[in-house]
Amino acid sequence: MNDRTTLRTDLNVFADFNPKLPESYRPAPYLLLGNIQPELQKSVRAQMGGVKLSGGDTMNYWINDFRAQLLETIREWDFLLINDSEARLLSGEHNLRRAAAKILGMGPHTLVVKRGEYGAVLFRRDCHFIAPGYLLEDVFDPTGAGDCFAGGFIGYLAGQGVEPSNGEINMVDLRKAVIYGSVMGSFCCEKFGVDRFRSLTHQEIEVRYREFQRCTAFK
Amino acid sequence: MNDRTTLRTDLNVFADFNPKLPESYRPAPYLLLGNIQPELQKSVRAQMGGVKLSGGDTMNYWINDFRAQLLETIREWDFLLINDSEARLLSGEHNLRRAAAKILGMGPHTLVVKRGEYGAVLFRRDCHFIAPGYLLEDVFDPTGAGDCFAGGFIGYLAGQGVEPSNGEINMVDLRKAVIYGSVMGSFCCEKFGVDRFRSLTHQEIEVRYREFQRCTAFK
Repeated sequence: MNDRTTLRTDLNVFADFNPKLPESYRPAPYLLLGNIQPELQKSVRAQMGGVKLSGGDTMNYWINDFRAQLLETIREWDFLLINDSEARLLSGEHNLRRAAAKILGMGPHTLVVKRGEYGAVLFRRDCHFIAPGYLLEDVFDPTGAGDCFAGGFIGYLAGQGVEPSNGEINMVDLRKAVIYGSVMGSFCCEKFGVDRFRSLTHQEIEVRYREFQRCTAFK
Repeated sequence: MNDRTTLRTDLNVFADFNPKLPESYRPAPYLLLGNIQPELQKSVRAQMGGVKLSGGDTMNYWINDFRAQLLETIREWDFLLINDSEARLLSGEHNLRRAAAKILGMGPHTLVVKRGEYGAVLFRRDCHFIAPGYLLEDVFDPTGAGDCFAGGFIGYLAGQGVEPSNGEINMVDLRKAVIYGSVMGSFCCEKFGVDRFRSLTHQEIEVRYREFQRCTAFK
């Protein structure tokens, strides 16, 4: 999850890629923008007429070589979801709390920093939430776990119909969304690709959520 | 905290070191054995007549080159407190849950695996507790944070008079002990050496403990 430089070559394939959303997609209230050229992310968001909550991912290539375009893009987002090395690169700060403070000055009111097997930290201007990673007994393949985290995060918020109020989402929902993200990321690691999700049930997700609670709670 | 190989040379200085405890130390009920030759740890424990709860630390050098002696020593301990790379080395398992299961078969009923800035995981045969690391805004020097963690851990248990019952300590106390360990480790990083502890108050410790709760709780 921390080294995605090899994507750089592949991305040239998409030089002429300019997505046009079907009309039926445009009124969707929740938007998660995958890691791609910031200009394309911006153009997709602009096509979404009724979006209530938007955010996405990025990577070192865009942070280094498309910085101005990236800053213009994420300024409109509610949340930015990146890993720890990307947070350091984007902010120029090694310390995560300082990095987060700088990034929250760039537009998004919510920053989620993924830390691979060590979990994630969610930052807002006034507080933060630290979630450890779920401890799997067998890690088959962690590829895609960060994307599954992102899906679980926005999926929970969309499922609950959570919307920003006065420019923010309440922390109770955000905390739960991070844990559901971690839960989905942990399932991803159990098989290759999306294989684990073909048979995954809502009940298994809830069982793991409660296991997360049991393994992290203290008085 | 993860690379302590440089200690190896220094340890030769202690070749003739054979500690004899003063009589007044021997009835103490709580014993935390620092990282040193396993034979010396064993000899110190044997001098403690009324010990109710004992455990300690070790390192790669003893695990690799004094394995039989180490296994004989930790067999008598209630808890073993090591970092993640040491847990992997001692068990021969990369996965932390599998490593823990093997180590808990070596004697101690409780294993605490320190993970530096990412916190710690406490394992028992029937359950585990994952604690993320406290996020400091300024890390001045992390040297000694693992030892301060150990001090906070045993210090909490001793302060509460916690004793094993049926060969185990209850998880409520163990969870709190891990968080107090993390709190003390975090203070260590704020200044050089033990400087931060010269002025540290109980109130500051409690404030940070509650901050830990606020930053990690979810429903």
